[in-house]
Amino acid sequence: MKNPTHAVNFAAPRSFAASFVADCKETFFPDDPFQKLKHEKPLPKLKKTIQYFIPLFEWLPNYNLRLFRYDLLAGLTITTLAIPQGISYAKLANIPPIYGLYSSFVPPFVYAIFGSSKYLAVGTVAACSLLLAETIGEKASPKDNPTLYIHLIFTATFFTGIFQTALGFLRLGILVDFLSHSTITGFMGGTAIIICLQQLKGVFGVKHFTTKTDVVSVLRALFLHRDEWRWQSAVVGLIFLVFLQFTRYVRQKRPKLFWVSAIAPMIVVVVGCLFAFFANAEKHGIAIVGDLKKGLNPLSIQYLNFDPQYLPVTVRAGIITGLIALVEGIAIGRSFAIMKNEQTDGNKEMIAFGFMNIIGSFTSCYLTTGPFSKTAVNFNAGCRTAMSNVVMGFCMMLTLLFLAPVFGYTPLVALSAIIMSAMLGLIDYNEMIHLFKVDKFDFVICMTAFLGVSFISMDVGLILSVGLALLRALLYVARPASCKLGKIPNSDLYRDTEQYPSSSPIQGILVLQLGSPIYFANTTYIRERVLRYIQEEQGVSDSKTDVVEHLLLDLSGVSSIDMTGIEAFVELRRILVSKGIQLKIVNPRIEVLEKMTLAKFTDVIGKESFYLSIEDAVQSCRFSLLSNKTKTKESSNDIQTVV
Amino acid sequence: MKNPTHAVNFAAPRSFAASFVADCKETFFPDDPFQKLKHEKPLPKLKKTIQYFIPLFEWLPNYNLRLFRYDLLAGLTITTLAIPQGISYAKLANIPPIYGLYSSFVPPFVYAIFGSSKYLAVGTVAACSLLLAETIGEKASPKDNPTLYIHLIFTATFFTGIFQTALGFLRLGILVDFLSHSTITGFMGGTAIIICLQQLKGVFGVKHFTTKTDVVSVLRALFLHRDEWRWQSAVVGLIFLVFLQFTRYVRQKRPKLFWVSAIAPMIVVVVGCLFAFFANAEKHGIAIVGDLKKGLNPLSIQYLNFDPQYLPVTVRAGIITGLIALVEGIAIGRSFAIMKNEQTDGNKEMIAFGFMNIIGSFTSCYLTTGPFSKTAVNFNAGCRTAMSNVVMGFCMMLTLLFLAPVFGYTPLVALSAIIMSAMLGLIDYNEMIHLFKVDKFDFVICMTAFLGVSFISMDVGLILSVGLALLRALLYVARPASCKLGKIPNSDLYRDTEQYPSSSPIQGILVLQLGSPIYFANTTYIRERVLRYIQEEQGVSDSKTDVVEHLLLDLSGVSSIDMTGIEAFVELRRILVSKGIQLKIVNPRIEVLEKMTLAKFTDVIGKESFYLSIEDAVQSCRFSLLSNKTKTKESSNDIQTVV
Repeated sequence: MKNPTHAVNFAAPRSFAASFVADCKETFFPDDPFQKLKHEKPLPKLKKTIQYFIPLFEWLPNYNLRLFRYDLLAGLTITTLAIPQGISYAKLANIPPIYGLYSSFVPPFVYAIFGSSKYLAVGTVAACSLLLAETIGEKASPKDNPTLYIHLIFTATFFTGIFQTALGFLRLGILVDFLSHSTITGFMGGTAIIICLQQLKGVFGVKHFTTKTDVVSVLRALFLHRDEWRWQSAVVGLIFLVFLQFTRYVRQKRPKLFWVSAIAPMIVVVVGCLFAFFANAEKHGIAIVGDLKKGLNPLSIQYLNFDPQYLPVTVRAGIITGLIALVEGIAIGRSFAIMKNEQTDGNKEMIAFGFMNIIGSFTSCYLTTGPFSKTAVNFNAGCRTAMSNVVMGFCMMLTLLFLAPVFGYTPLVALSAIIMSAMLGLIDYNEMIHLFKVDKFDFVICMTAFLGVSFISMDVGLILSVGLALLRALLYVARPASCKLGKIPNSDLYRDTEQYPSSSPIQGILVLQLGSPIYFANTTYIRERVLRYIQEEQGVSDSKTDVVEHLLLDLSGVSSIDMTGIEAFVELRRILVSKGIQLKIVNPRIEVLEKMTLAKFTDVIGKESFYLSIEDAVQSCRFSLLSNKTKTKESSNDIQTVV
Repeated sequence: MKNPTHAVNFAAPRSFAASFVADCKETFFPDDPFQKLKHEKPLPKLKKTIQYFIPLFEWLPNYNLRLFRYDLLAGLTITTLAIPQGISYAKLANIPPIYGLYSSFVPPFVYAIFGSSKYLAVGTVAACSLLLAETIGEKASPKDNPTLYIHLIFTATFFTGIFQTALGFLRLGILVDFLSHSTITGFMGGTAIIICLQQLKGVFGVKHFTTKTDVVSVLRALFLHRDEWRWQSAVVGLIFLVFLQFTRYVRQKRPKLFWVSAIAPMIVVVVGCLFAFFANAEKHGIAIVGDLKKGLNPLSIQYLNFDPQYLPVTVRAGIITGLIALVEGIAIGRSFAIMKNEQTDGNKEMIAFGFMNIIGSFTSCYLTTGPFSKTAVNFNAGCRTAMSNVVMGFCMMLTLLFLAPVFGYTPLVALSAIIMSAMLGLIDYNEMIHLFKVDKFDFVICMTAFLGVSFISMDVGLILSVGLALLRALLYVARPASCKLGKIPNSDLYRDTEQYPSSSPIQGILVLQLGSPIYFANTTYIRERVLRYIQEEQGVSDSKTDVVEHLLLDLSGVSSIDMTGIEAFVELRRILVSKGIQLKIVNPRIEVLEKMTLAKFTDVIGKESFYLSIEDAVQSCRFSLLSNKTKTKESSNDIQTVV
């Protein structure tokens, strides 16, 4: 047999420890955070390590007045958003509005110390607020037992913090990867729908309402209580909503005027307060927020409730909202960092969010993260560092100390308009249409989240959608793509015959390309698929059984293999031998070759059956086909001679 | 720019319907069963379709006396195994032994009609019997309420049948693929351990025993009741066990004498019966089976119990045992078929097993499948078709009609010895050691099943192990392998620089190979990994930022991509552009190129950035690098001229 031009490297497999360490590193430290520290001396190393864990020390030493001017402006802008959003989302979570303001005071300081994103603005988010209300509401009624309810909210926030910190320290940023873009699009859209519907309660001034969140229950509750509708409230709400949507429209048309839409909610609140105060709106059926006490956050660490009776619900709420908050916060931080060509560290962000929520739960705050709208405003307002969060924190402190009671006059309908306007922006029709056009399965995943959240409940919708996405991942794994290769004319290239119809098969040689890892979930399939390729090649009739003499498996795309996979190869080879077909392996990757060597498969089929390129293998097969034919000829010559 | 030698094929993407049908076909009909029927005329087509669904019609017309002689011998041999196994495993399931004999009468006939394996021998299995006892025992005590207990066993068997049939008709053979070889090895080993320990009850003649199956509970129960130990019983058991193990040893040494170990259990039973009858063993503390009534299976369809109170437990028992029975039956059928170069159809086997259990549950049988030991004996005894099952069924009928009461004298200790001997053969030490050597993760999966089954319970052990295997599959998906390619000297080949240290990188061009599908679970990772490669390439210092000018991504191994994946590419490209690096795509596969075209990614980066081979892309990059340098030279020349 002719030697292949280029040999496969059969170096000894790496030790288990070496490959295990390498695998763990790729799994948990894909960003290789300490790479830069390797060549440093002890003292700078310590400094850089501290700077790594506490990003504050990285940017503060270089901070100057010029940067501060930018951050001050951005901080003031997001404060005008933080006040109405804080009050609104607290209402959404069924807790007194003052806690919404508290939640914009302490967490921004914590984030400024530990957070690694420059553009993220800290605050509460609508989806998590509603989800908290939905989950905790199962065990404690916010109306009948408000004290227990708020304590459980703090406890859930505490668990969120613990969970997020743990994920960060365990380097499990990988978990967040399992929420696909399609799931998030659908989830956001569905959440926006149900939150908007919830607001109809405030807009129509309905008093008796359902605690459920699904579309059907909400609409039914709304129409059952038609007698409670207040047209005054609805008219005011509509005016506010139109105004807010108009400012959004302005921003879209003229991105430079982003600040118009950024301060619009504050304008709505101020106008609403003035209107309520002077027009005595409460008497005309327009409800207002009510008492807001002056003063900073009281301590709440003593209220954390670890009663086993409530533990399952608080832990569940903590974990689910924590995960969603992480996804929103990390995704948004990442998006803006990418715009500026910077990188954020997902695991570090998790730790920052975690600390923020733990400390928040001790100081009367509920769940905070990096909300989309606020961060976008922060970015557009030109923030340069996390200092804008500090500015917001200070403004919030001043508000809490002196201005809080003023905001008590905010009409509920103004808050509803603010929430609805924010939510309408979250339904990403274009993305859904795009998904439908490009990838039907992704569209189904998106719609599952969207419809699941709208018609069942937020967590069920999310879980269904993630489950479907995982199922798809497992299907990819269970049914890996494979194709038959042909030779592209005038080249040494072998490509998919379906994709390149001009490529031609080689007489007597079947070249197959396998993709994706080979392991238990797909070995049976791969074996049967390969046998079917041979069957198809040889045609239906059994007479031409000698058509395929060599089977070449191109394993360039097979990144790993497990025991079941190797056994499938052993079996496949046995079947092929019985059919008189020779198996050749082309370009196995390092992990695959290691396993094959350890399992002695290389010895079974012989090292001479491994080739570095398809062309080498084909040449070698041609040679043996040729010599076979010559032999047959010779033997037939012999027979002739004998005869 | 120089034109590439070979162009990428940008044909219009296939329609959604076309690719959807193709995907479904690969997922559910990987074996393409109707391929052969395509070119047939209606009448032969109908005939072949019937033959496809009822394999009996395929082999019966060609059946002859010569074949029957082989099948008769094999059938008689497996009957001698069926009687002791039937009685033993019925005891294991805590049901009267006669049901074990019933279960070897009806199901073999059903399988002979619908089953597609020639070598499979039908019967009850130890693992499923114990699992049934464990699960059903939770709700109904076999001692206090034996009638309810046996009715629930029938109901569970019925659900097993429905479940198996449904899986078969829905072509969900794919589910069985998710039980990896490692899981099965561990599960079998663990089951063997706990079943052996259970038998110590019979061997020591202990009366008070635990209903739990885990090692700790069983050993504690055994040693707590040392006062009940009967040395007579233990001695007899030990003699039987030594005899059985000796016959196994004989079979291993001289495979031709397989029949010695095949009829050994029958010898043990007969000797045991004679001993018990003549020595009045019962009075010496050696318990016997007791009354066995003459007569065929009574109908049991009227006993199926669908009471909602018991439904959860019967359905659960039915599904779990059904799945395990399928795996054992299909795996064993496949193994022997492969030895003879035949193929079995997993989905058809499922339907056959399903019918067998549905009809079985109507006729006082409990769960049956294709047990490993019996099938091996059947194969070795030289069976040719499923007729050996029919022979066994007839022999069983005769036994039930005339001989049943005789077997009532079987000492329990003889049954224990038979079970223990069978189970000791199922602990596959060698395979476990092999796993440890080749693949540590597979070893962990195997040990999880082994220890989980031994120390917790059968279903928990199984679920943990499968969960771990799935987690591994998802990790493969979330952290796909990627590598940097270098050029192998004197060739056009580009290979992993780690695997082939002799390969050399190309100045200014970074070539990366990505493996496995790209989608939501790994896009973040892939993007960051690619950026890290660039960072590593450019070194730590920022001075040499101009080192990489072209990034070539070899997508040969990427078999599919989803929306999140494409968006990651868009983002990656944006980052690269800002770094002044050009992105080139090499050899995208058909599915990937389709999606990229639909998502307009091809338009974004331009069709001229797609290449069919790395060499083409490198040549083109070299050309542009060269012209850039010339330009720089020219411009510096210009400057010189100006100066």
